[in-house]
Amino acid sequence: MKRWPEVVQIKEVGPRDGLQNEKNRVSTADKVAWINMLSESGVKEIEFSSFVHPKWVPQLSDAHEVGRRIKRNPKVRYSALVPNRKGLELALGAGIDGASVFMSASETHNLKNINKSIDNTYPVLEEVIGEAKKAGKHVTGYVSTVFDCPYEGKISPEEVIRVCDQLMEFGVDDLSLGDTIGTAVPSQVEALLEAVLRRYPKEKIIMHFHDTRGMAIANILSSMEYGITRFDSSIGGLGGCPYAPGAAGNVATNDILYLLHGMGIETGIDEKKVQEAAFFIQNKLGKSLPSKSLAYAAAQQ
Amino acid sequence: MKRWPEVVQIKEVGPRDGLQNEKNRVSTADKVAWINMLSESGVKEIEFSSFVHPKWVPQLSDAHEVGRRIKRNPKVRYSALVPNRKGLELALGAGIDGASVFMSASETHNLKNINKSIDNTYPVLEEVIGEAKKAGKHVTGYVSTVFDCPYEGKISPEEVIRVCDQLMEFGVDDLSLGDTIGTAVPSQVEALLEAVLRRYPKEKIIMHFHDTRGMAIANILSSMEYGITRFDSSIGGLGGCPYAPGAAGNVATNDILYLLHGMGIETGIDEKKVQEAAFFIQNKLGKSLPSKSLAYAAAQQ
Repeated sequence: MKRWPEVVQIKEVGPRDGLQNEKNRVSTADKVAWINMLSESGVKEIEFSSFVHPKWVPQLSDAHEVGRRIKRNPKVRYSALVPNRKGLELALGAGIDGASVFMSASETHNLKNINKSIDNTYPVLEEVIGEAKKAGKHVTGYVSTVFDCPYEGKISPEEVIRVCDQLMEFGVDDLSLGDTIGTAVPSQVEALLEAVLRRYPKEKIIMHFHDTRGMAIANILSSMEYGITRFDSSIGGLGGCPYAPGAAGNVATNDILYLLHGMGIETGIDEKKVQEAAFFIQNKLGKSLPSKSLAYAAAQQ
Repeated sequence: MKRWPEVVQIKEVGPRDGLQNEKNRVSTADKVAWINMLSESGVKEIEFSSFVHPKWVPQLSDAHEVGRRIKRNPKVRYSALVPNRKGLELALGAGIDGASVFMSASETHNLKNINKSIDNTYPVLEEVIGEAKKAGKHVTGYVSTVFDCPYEGKISPEEVIRVCDQLMEFGVDDLSLGDTIGTAVPSQVEALLEAVLRRYPKEKIIMHFHDTRGMAIANILSSMEYGITRFDSSIGGLGGCPYAPGAAGNVATNDILYLLHGMGIETGIDEKKVQEAAFFIQNKLGKSLPSKSLAYAAAQQ
């Protein structure tokens, strides 16, 4: 039998990547109450909001207030998405512990998402990363569309590494590689990790899967075979797919915990508390979240 | 990178294991039309119904008529569930190519499901298997609750093998090992297959996963690592969990095809036709099926 990791670290991205794809607005008070529940679940990092311009993500326009109002657990790193220097300043004012910068491995996706070419995105991120590090903050570099792009199709490991190299050079602490449209299958994960782990230590790599086609848990399993022990996930599988309204979002924290704890892998996270937080936001949004283990738990009650 | 199988064989169990857990009745004409669609999808085996007493599964009380009315594709094996000699006679009259017998690796689950102890089930199955083989039919032995039992908890590989040994001795052609309540995680799959494959060639073993907690695709991946190339699945993930109304059923044929075809593994099955068959039954049942890749496809339309 195989050797699986003993400990895996989960970053909860529901309040950011999850919520940003939900149409029904959640009030600031509810977000704060919800993040406070997450803070007590044992999770070590929460991405609590995004400081992109509110025009792009109205759901997260209260990022500053949320950051100021949440009750901080000293064992949790509170991070937020920052697009540029202005966003970083606002985020610092809201008391972030970590900044997440982002760009795409696909030229076209980067252009559509950030409105700049990959080459023109670099100087912006170099500045943000430098400033955030100067302020003593942890910086994660998100690279999106690392497997497939909705516009360009397959993305090669070389295209991903080209972007990773730049972000590492600018000083990010780690890289989160995103299956943004949830299309990857395990053989693609293997091919990418073969290339990436020749270049970077596995501790620097976080895998970020979306469960749009139900492949995320299998992709996480494949990643763990390569020694990856850091994953992003979203309570209940919150968040959708901007390219297919109604389809599933980020891999569900509930499902990844079911997998890991079932395999005897420690996370330090209390499944019951995660379940309660999932029921809470499900009620606020007025819809069932896509996590199958959550649906099972709900049916049992 | 790992060596994955080149070809995998799928048995479509939607019309039996799927439908038997659906409350909304589907008319015989609709079942026939639906199975005829499945017959043209490229799948090599369809379990079209069950010949257990209609009192237990009213949804499948028209098994005989369905068997007589479906249009046979000579490339497809049409099998049905048979509980005993009487059921086998009815099934033979309905023109089955294969008979599936069943029992549980858990004493308590066997008692609750079949109303007999494991030891008292053996003579019944010995007779059915003997008669079915005499009639020249393919016989599959389903063993349920091979990982966990809703009454007894963990089931050991030894308990599973004890039942497998008897069924093989009685003459079944192959064994389908069922995660009946959909609780297994990949480390459990590894432990069971380590034991089972020391005893039987992998060609004799079919894995039968339910996706109740969203683990089925990862469990299939683990099974393939052990060389398993035969899986049961259900269109759209049809069928629920009798222990948790509202929870997911069998692993979805649509999701397993997404996985396999994405990894370059052949099945001979046309994904589009499976999708159409899934939309067909979804409409007849008046509800969305749990397959995430199906939900994605629906959202795209």
